[in-house]
Parts: sequence; C-alpha cells; structure tokens
Amino acid sequence: MPLLYLAGKMERTKAPFSELVSNELLAAEQLMRERVVEIHPNLDYAVNHLLSAGGKRIRPTLTLLTGRMLNSDREKIITLAAAIEMLHTATLVHDDLIDGAAVRRGKTTLNAQWSTGATVLTGDYVFARAARLAAGTGSVELMKIFAKSLMIMVNGEISQLFELSSSDLRKDYFERIQAKTASLFEVATYGAALLSDCDDHLKIEMKSFGYELGLAFQIVDDVLDFTSDEELLGKPVASDLRHGLITLPSLIYYEANQEDPRLAQILNQNQIVDKDLEKLISEIKDSGALESALLEAREFVISAKNRLSSIENSPNCEALIEMADYIVDRHF
Amino acid sequence: MPLLYLAGKMERTKAPFSELVSNELLAAEQLMRERVVEIHPNLDYAVNHLLSAGGKRIRPTLTLLTGRMLNSDREKIITLAAAIEMLHTATLVHDDLIDGAAVRRGKTTLNAQWSTGATVLTGDYVFARAARLAAGTGSVELMKIFAKSLMIMVNGEISQLFELSSSDLRKDYFERIQAKTASLFEVATYGAALLSDCDDHLKIEMKSFGYELGLAFQIVDDVLDFTSDEELLGKPVASDLRHGLITLPSLIYYEANQEDPRLAQILNQNQIVDKDLEKLISEIKDSGALESALLEAREFVISAKNRLSSIENSPNCEALIEMADYIVDRHF
Repeated sequence: MPLLYLAGKMERTKAPFSELVSNELLAAEQLMRERVVEIHPNLDYAVNHLLSAGGKRIRPTLTLLTGRMLNSDREKIITLAAAIEMLHTATLVHDDLIDGAAVRRGKTTLNAQWSTGATVLTGDYVFARAARLAAGTGSVELMKIFAKSLMIMVNGEISQLFELSSSDLRKDYFERIQAKTASLFEVATYGAALLSDCDDHLKIEMKSFGYELGLAFQIVDDVLDFTSDEELLGKPVASDLRHGLITLPSLIYYEANQEDPRLAQILNQNQIVDKDLEKLISEIKDSGALESALLEAREFVISAKNRLSSIENSPNCEALIEMADYIVDRHF
Repeated sequence: MPLLYLAGKMERTKAPFSELVSNELLAAEQLMRERVVEIHPNLDYAVNHLLSAGGKRIRPTLTLLTGRMLNSDREKIITLAAAIEMLHTATLVHDDLIDGAAVRRGKTTLNAQWSTGATVLTGDYVFARAARLAAGTGSVELMKIFAKSLMIMVNGEISQLFELSSSDLRKDYFERIQAKTASLFEVATYGAALLSDCDDHLKIEMKSFGYELGLAFQIVDDVLDFTSDEELLGKPVASDLRHGLITLPSLIYYEANQEDPRLAQILNQNQIVDKDLEKLISEIKDSGALESALLEAREFVISAKNRLSSIENSPNCEALIEMADYIVDRHF
C-alpha cells in the first residue's frame, strides 16, 4: 500500500506548501545568480547552467518555511536559503565529477562538458558564493554551523571513497546519510531558528527537526532509486546497487536473507553477472524491503513533526507539517 | 646589482621580524591542525601531509605582525592567521591537481599520491576548515572579504584556463597576479585591521599595504622562477615560460624585443624547440629584464611602506617594514 503512489509516473507539480514562500524562493533564486565580483563569461555560463537545471529546491523551501513560522527576519532568511542551496549545488558539482556522472536533474553535468580543472574551479567558486551568502545573514554562529556541515559532508564522501563495508552495515548506512544529507537539512532548519527570536529549546528542536527530515529524505531517495523509472530519474533503476552501494532497501533485504551470496558478492566489491543482478533487484522490490524502508522514513518524519508540538498552530506551521509529509509521499 | 643576492644558494633561515610573532605562529599552526569534527584517518593524514610540508607562512606572519602593530585581539588574530593559511593551502591543493604538479615545497603533492576524487575532496575539506576558522574571528565583515577573495582567486584561475593572451599583455599579467596573490595578501592585512580599533582611514591604508605587498611578492616569485636553481625550487628554471606563461621578466623582455619570433610563438601556444627555449631563457636573464622586474616590485614595496607613515614608530611597525623589505630581498 505505501508504494501505490509510486507506481504511476507523476507530473512535477508545485506542492501547495511551497506556494506560501514562492516569492521568497524567487528572491533566493535571484540572490544565487547575483555576481558580487566580475567573473569570466565561461564561469558565468557554468553557474547559470547549474542553477537553471533547477532541482526540487527542497532545502531552501525548508529554510523559508521554518523562518516564516518562527518570524525570522525575511531578508536574512532569503539569504540563508540561497546560501544553503548554493552549498548543496557546489557539493553536487564535485560529487558528479568524482562519480563521472553525465546527467543531473535531466541536464548534462558540468564535468561531462568541461575539463576536470574547470569543473573543480567552478565548484570552488560556488563554495565561495555560498560562504559569501552565509556571511550575508550577519550571523557568526550560522557561519560556524555552515562550515561544519561542509566538513561533515566532505568527510562522509571521503569515507565512502576509502572504506570497505564494516561488519555493521546499518551503522555504515546511517553514518553515510547523516553526512550526505541530514547534516545540511539540519542547517536549513537550525539556521532559520538561529535567525529568529525563538527560545533555545525550540532552536534545538528545530535542529533535530531538520536532521530527522534529512534522514527521511535520503531514505526515500534510496527507495525511489528502486521504484522510479529511468526516464524520470535520468539514471538506471537501482543505480546505487549497480555501483556496489548498499542502501536501506538492499540492507533490509540482506538483514532478512544473510545467506544470499549475491549481496555478499556486491559487498565484497565483486561484480555479479547482469542476469543475477536484475533478478536480485526484482527480488528486493518484491520482498517488502521498500515498504519497510519507507516505514523507517515515516518514523523519522513522525518524530520530526512531534518537535513542532509546542508551536501554536498556524498556516505556516501547517505548511511545514505538509512539507514533512511530502518528504515521504513524493514520487521523485 | 639587485640580483647579486640571488646568485648563491641560501639556507632557509628564520627572518628576524618573524621572531616577534613566533609564539603566535605556533598557535596558528596548532589551530590549523585542530579537528573540529571526527574525520577519516586518510583525510587526517592528507591534511597533516599538507601542513607539514611547511612553506614560508608569509601570509599568516603578515597578519600576525599587522595585528600586533594595531593592537588587535591576540586570539582573533591567531585565528585569522590560521584561516588565511588554510585558505591558501586549499587553493594550492586544487591548483596542483589542475596543473598535474608532482612536487610542492619539496614534498610529493597530494594529487601525485591520490585519486582525483580524494584530492578534490581534501581541498574542499581544507576550504571548509578555512571558513570555520574565519568564522572563529567573530567578524562578519571579515567573513565577507574572505569569501570574496576566494571568488577572485578562483575566477583568476578560470580566466587563465580559458583565456588566450589579449593584446595587452601587461594588463593580463597584473590582473592575473592581483587575483592569484594580491587578493589574499590584502585580506591578511585588511583583515587584521578589521579586528583592531584603528580608524577607517588606516584600515583602508592597511588594505592597500597588503595588496601592494602581494603584487611585489608575486613579481619576486616570478623573478625567482628564472634565477633560483632547480633543487631549491623543486621545478625546472623558468618553468612558467616552459608552460607558455608570460610573467613580468619575459614581458619586460618582450616589450623591448617585440620582433622576437620566439616569444610570439610561445604566446600563440606553439611549442618551440628546446634549444631555442634554453637560449631565450638565457637571453631574458642577460637582458636586464629580471632587474627591471625587481625594480617594479620594489616600487610596490616603497608605496606599501608609505602607507605606514601615519603610524607611530615602534618595534612592531619596524618589523612590518622589515618584512616588506624581505619580500623583495628574499632568495626563495
């Protein structure tokens, strides 16, 4: 049942909760494109190429809705939203280069068009723009968590490059998604709270709110990797598993079928023949592992929503709750 | 005459001016090595490898001396010094990767040991550490100039990747060294002034002071590329020219010998035969172009020192003047 809505291909539509902050999102988008120093036309082209590829803008929307609910300063919140999406974009540029990815968000990646050098430098420029935007919030505390989040994300990527699977696959998985996704989601909501007058207890609750939503978001991404179609994702179904990466659905399947030699082979970085791999993917999909993974994601969303219990109900708070639900109910 | 001191190979000795801030430099060094998040052992190894390669630490010394002269807060100045050297280190990691450099500061570069991916990510981590340190100064204004300086440096590198020589080689050269070196030197001194109580006029003077020293420093580096020996530099003599890059000495030679077909060939990215290249290098060295370039560097240092004229004489101010002189009088 939880997978019914994943069966059909859906149009990308604007979620209603995001309409509340559509003007602010537009303003953040403009800030992201602003040039604060004179730049080379090719760099300008590259940055525009990256930003016009779009993406769900889930992180800035989360920041804007949180800031709106907490009455944070409008200009500062818009700046933070732009900073967070820029930081996310910069990490994608370097990640795609490292993975040799050719397509992202339906557009050719930068590394598929440019030399390694130009791609590395463009990523660096976007990091610098992100840092400049973060400074634009005027909050030193925010700059600190911003830089720390980048350290955590980069360390996560490096660990993934060097580490073979440990004996605790579940711990490995959660460490990886904490670094990769939850860390920046945490900045999206905690940062918005830091820019408000809310009390310290609520700030910490908003930190956990973002963190848990980040975990849920990544788990759902990992489920969608199995259920969405190639055209919508722009990559083959179960691409993580094809690259030897065990995400929550395969992990849940493995926990129930530890004797299965195929997953052990993948874990040991051994190739398995295509026919076996396709069969394994199909068996994982039929095993209930996707539904179980979504249930885990839903648990994180429930816990996150409980963080908002002390906040008086309002359309802004409801929009944030809607957004939390969207994170597990989305189709792409 | 100005080149006499460049003739003999010198031991690397501590300049006397740096002794005034040796404790602070040590403290900055410790800060640079501090881990604020738990990191993978390989990343830890890489960061230590980069930092233990040393280098002249010219930028943090400049920050520390400026801060000492202006009575800036000691802890904040140490933090800024560490931030600036970290930012410099991060840019070197990516530059060496892009240039395919095998040796830096007498040590194997990271890219010569590691994959592109691991090298890109290590650079990113060092950027994040630099940003975190910059935030540690508690100054939002400083964070802004810090991020802006990175944008300028990266844009300079990208322009160099894409741009063929324009009709104005002198303008090209100065734009390049402003971005590559003067921009961060400016942050080193202006940042130190921002962390002090000095008046706005002096802050602007200290900004120009760093900027001009940066230009002088890079010109001297470009002269040393011709005069120093391979063992000391860790790269062949005139390596810039060998890579088709026109720096001030070749430019001055070209300005006086515009009909020389060899430089035109290099400017048009055409290979010239080794014998011709060696002869050209030797002719540039004998032409007086190196001495003229050093004179230009010395002009910038004189202008920089004049910026200090309103400051009461003190051992700290004298040390900064000594350091300015060292920038053109150094041998490596």
